Parts: sequence; C-alpha cells; structure tokens
Amino acid sequence: MKIAILGGTGSIGGGLAYRWAENHEIFVGSRDAEKAEKAAYEYACLLSDRGISCNIFGLDNKTATARAEVVVISIPHAFVVPFLGSLYPSFKDQTVISLVVPIKKNTWYEYTPPRQGSAALEIRDLLPPGVTVVSAYHNIPARKLCNLDIILEGDVVVCGDVDNAKRIVMDLTREIRNLRPLDGGPLTSSSMIESLTPFLMNLGIRNNLSDLSVKFI
Amino acid sequence: MKIAILGGTGSIGGGLAYRWAENHEIFVGSRDAEKAEKAAYEYACLLSDRGISCNIFGLDNKTATARAEVVVISIPHAFVVPFLGSLYPSFKDQTVISLVVPIKKNTWYEYTPPRQGSAALEIRDLLPPGVTVVSAYHNIPARKLCNLDIILEGDVVVCGDVDNAKRIVMDLTREIRNLRPLDGGPLTSSSMIESLTPFLMNLGIRNNLSDLSVKFI
Repeated sequence: MKIAILGGTGSIGGGLAYRWAENHEIFVGSRDAEKAEKAAYEYACLLSDRGISCNIFGLDNKTATARAEVVVISIPHAFVVPFLGSLYPSFKDQTVISLVVPIKKNTWYEYTPPRQGSAALEIRDLLPPGVTVVSAYHNIPARKLCNLDIILEGDVVVCGDVDNAKRIVMDLTREIRNLRPLDGGPLTSSSMIESLTPFLMNLGIRNNLSDLSVKFI
Repeated sequence: MKIAILGGTGSIGGGLAYRWAENHEIFVGSRDAEKAEKAAYEYACLLSDRGISCNIFGLDNKTATARAEVVVISIPHAFVVPFLGSLYPSFKDQTVISLVVPIKKNTWYEYTPPRQGSAALEIRDLLPPGVTVVSAYHNIPARKLCNLDIILEGDVVVCGDVDNAKRIVMDLTREIRNLRPLDGGPLTSSSMIESLTPFLMNLGIRNNLSDLSVKFI
C-alpha cells in the first residue's frame, strides 16, 4: 500500500514509517520537501543497517497526499485547520488515519476537543466527502514507537464509520509486532481514545511511570 | 478498619467483601437488614469453606454507615439521590468510595454524567462536608471480583482531593492480590475513569471479549 505520513518527520510519524516500511511504500510528508527527503533517507539508513529493505520517500505534503491510498495525520492539533485547508485539493478518496489529540497543558494535561467533539470528527469535516477518516494510535508512546529495539505492547483502539477503512487500519496494526487492534466503534467514539492520551500522560507523571500505553485485559 | 459496603448484596459489593474480610470488619449494607444478614452469612460461609476467618455482618444501610470508617457506595446511579438523601444523617466524617457509574444503554452503553460532571462529584455534593469522597474500582469486572478462584489483573485508578483518604483506598487496593492502585489525581478526574466503564463494555461486545479491565503499561 502507498502510505503518506504527514508530520512524518516527528517521532511518532517516524515510528510508523519504521514499522510499516518493509511491507509498504512510505511517503514521509513535510511542508519542506527537502526536510522530508532528509528524514526519509535517515529512516531508510536505519532500516538498512538492520538488514531491512524498504521503500521510503520524502515528499512535500501535497504530493505525498495525492499519491497515497492511506494518509496518516500526525500533527499538533493547533495546525489542523490551516494544514488541511491548504491540502484539501490533494485529497480525493484516501483512508485518513487521525492520530491528532487536542491537548493543552496547564499544571496538568487537559483534553480540549473542538466543537465537533473530537479531532477525528473535526478532520472529517475538513476533508472532501470521498475521504474516510479512521482514528487510531493515540495511545502508543512516540518514544517507544520510534525505537525499534523496543517490542511494543498495548492495544490500539480503532474508531471509524466505514468497516473497510477500519479493517485496513486494523490490518496495518497487526503488522506491528505485539500490537493488538480493537474495534472501538464509530468515529464519534474517538473522543474517548483521544482523551485517554492526556489522562495517560497525567497518570504517568503522578505515578512516576513513563510512556504509558494501555492494554484491555 | 470498619468498612460498610452499601449495595453489598450485589456482586461487586460481595466481591469487595470477600477480598477485604480477612483483614477488616465488613458491614454488608442493604435497605433490608434481613437481606443484608443473609448475604453476610453466605459470604462468611464461602470464606470459611476456604479456611478464611472473617468478620462480616449484615446491617441496614443506616447502621452500617454510622458504624463505618470507610463506606463503599456500589449502587446504580439512578438511586444515588434518594439513597444518599435518606442516609445523610448517618454520615459524619467517613471516607466514601464511589464505584458509581452513570450509564445508559441504547444500542451501546453510554456515559451519562450528572450536571456536576461525574457521579463522584455529585455524591460529594450530596454528603456532609466532613465526608471525603474517593472514586475507584469502576473498571474491575464484578464477575471477576466476586470469584475467588480468579486472580484479578488490572489497575485501579483512584481519584480524590484528600491525600490521606486516597492513601487508605490505595492501601485497600494493594490488599487485593495483583491489583495495582494508581493515583488518578483529583476528584474532578473521576469522569475519565467512570466513562471508561461503558467504553470497556462496548469494546468487549464489539471484539468478543468479556469482563474487560484495564492495565497501563
């Protein structure tokens, strides 16, 4: 599959690129194509050092989006509206995976959903009707995801309204060793998994635990 | 410690009675003292059959409350207002543990918090100011808790505004083998752990898993 990772130069985007690059064509997207190329090259070198052959390319966000079947959105929530506004014409019928968590830090982390109720629903509103939004990977710590020496643990709750798109994301999740995808229901349930992220961050701070993920047992 | 379990004839109340009866004096509370005595007798017999000596008594809710240092409230949310209204004079300075989850089932389970934002905050409003409310044990399945052949797994997130009361509940949690208490922050954070309950129930149904609890890893 052709997967664009927008925000692909960040650690969570990088982590997904690492984990999927063996089986898929990855387009690392950035505003700056040069920065994207540099990141893609670094990812490919790291994988190559481990004997993993891969197809990772660095592209500007528009080209990455237009060429992909699956588009991962991994950017800070504050940028979502202008970011997707400028990218609108590049979207057509892709499956979009939102990792976005609207979050604010005062003393503690706080979930600050937009008026639609969640980032996933907001993103759906900002994209053409042919695009399908799925919400996932909010609760996998970036630091663990981008460290290939760590065997991830945890469950990935996947929310979305279109079964086929949800199945694609659940299958992609199964490709990452030890991660278990769980059907979290419709996209309206995304607020629950998004709000778990600041909760996990606060829980970590309060209990001297770091990089928490969640497992349902 | 003297622990009253209101709603103690239900499976979650029974489960807590089983798990704490060896070390504490347990008052199983019910509107009907006779029903409470019957349940207390059954619990004591079951523990006695396993060679566990215990102090479990059945009392009407008022007496159970007035005699206790810790009061567990494990009743359906719909009954909270009249229930605590009638019990108000029996409360003074106890630590109250709220297990209450405001929940509604249409096709799926839905979290339906009262105007205060959570059942725990509502319960705090309904009790005398000397009482301290702590919120915990929402995500431990009743069926597992009341089956002593099952070794529980999972984390118990404890929310509350008074450190000493929170410590009492965290210590009580540690007495239940394999349960790990985690500090969930102030009582205002209770909505998060309360809303996890219907989420876990839906997740279980959607993924053919039953009696889910949660572990932060």
